[in-house]
Amino acid sequence: MNIEEAEQAIRDILPEKRYVHSLGVSETAGKLAEKYGADPYKARLAGMLHDIVKYFPDDQLKRIILRRADISNDYLAYSVKLWHAPAGAAYVQENYGIDDHEVLNAMAFHTTGRKSMTDLEKIIFLADYIEPGRDFPGVDEVREVAGRSLDEAVFQELQRTIIHLLNKRQRVYPETFEAYNDLV
Amino acid sequence: MNIEEAEQAIRDILPEKRYVHSLGVSETAGKLAEKYGADPYKARLAGMLHDIVKYFPDDQLKRIILRRADISNDYLAYSVKLWHAPAGAAYVQENYGIDDHEVLNAMAFHTTGRKSMTDLEKIIFLADYIEPGRDFPGVDEVREVAGRSLDEAVFQELQRTIIHLLNKRQRVYPETFEAYNDLV
Repeated sequence: MNIEEAEQAIRDILPEKRYVHSLGVSETAGKLAEKYGADPYKARLAGMLHDIVKYFPDDQLKRIILRRADISNDYLAYSVKLWHAPAGAAYVQENYGIDDHEVLNAMAFHTTGRKSMTDLEKIIFLADYIEPGRDFPGVDEVREVAGRSLDEAVFQELQRTIIHLLNKRQRVYPETFEAYNDLV
Repeated sequence: MNIEEAEQAIRDILPEKRYVHSLGVSETAGKLAEKYGADPYKARLAGMLHDIVKYFPDDQLKRIILRRADISNDYLAYSVKLWHAPAGAAYVQENYGIDDHEVLNAMAFHTTGRKSMTDLEKIIFLADYIEPGRDFPGVDEVREVAGRSLDEAVFQELQRTIIHLLNKRQRVYPETFEAYNDLV
């Protein structure tokens, strides 16, 4: 599947606002990849598809997670907001024949992060946070940091995300904590 | 070992300021135990002894941790500030003949917390944070909460402690994260 086909696929599946967000992530990820020596094509493809199953019913996401031996069932004990990331990677592998595990893992860990992330995984994780459509307190600082250090920007995203979850009294997925500890 | 012997032991070992802190933890823990139905004697004993090896050289704490099969070596990959808790429990077991595992575990987890803490463990964890000598922003709020809910007070302590560590860009011991997730 090439980038144009991926764009067509998400245009058919996603609501307009999420489609525009995905274009932003794809473009931002491509630029970060060029800057930090990752593969811009893989970055744009993973960015385009990262949210593809985001609006599937929870039950369907749950079935995908349960069916796939390579997705931890631990997700099901945490927020449903996490499920679309690994389920989306499984979906594009099964339905679009994408078998590049760098792309699949960048999609699978774009919400939680994990320990020892690859540069491509960091790029999708970060692009999702800072694409031009994002607007929340602190996003400009992280954008600025992303211009000079991929690791520092990912670290600050993890730091802010975990603090945000703690302030909202929400559980934090263990891999997110591990990603933070890993980058300290 | 009774409470008076424990007090004598820490008076001999700890600097004045830490001795006074330990008296505060012991007294606060005893009151919390009475309020929440735990054993006041165990609470006072664990509170008195919780910091007993805090000023031992790092090397000595490390040797205790390495020697004891029941203490995770993971501690050694995290801050030295965590080591005195499990090492202190081992020390009082070996040197004072304290074999009550409720007391030993309350000492061992007083700094990190852990998943599924017992009430006595929560009481020592909390008393260490709110004893009368403690003075930091927010301590009075946690004291107030401690008067009506042990779990909510421990939750807020974990929440504040993790946010504090994140803001200082420090690693967080995984059991502390697990304790937080467990109490959400």
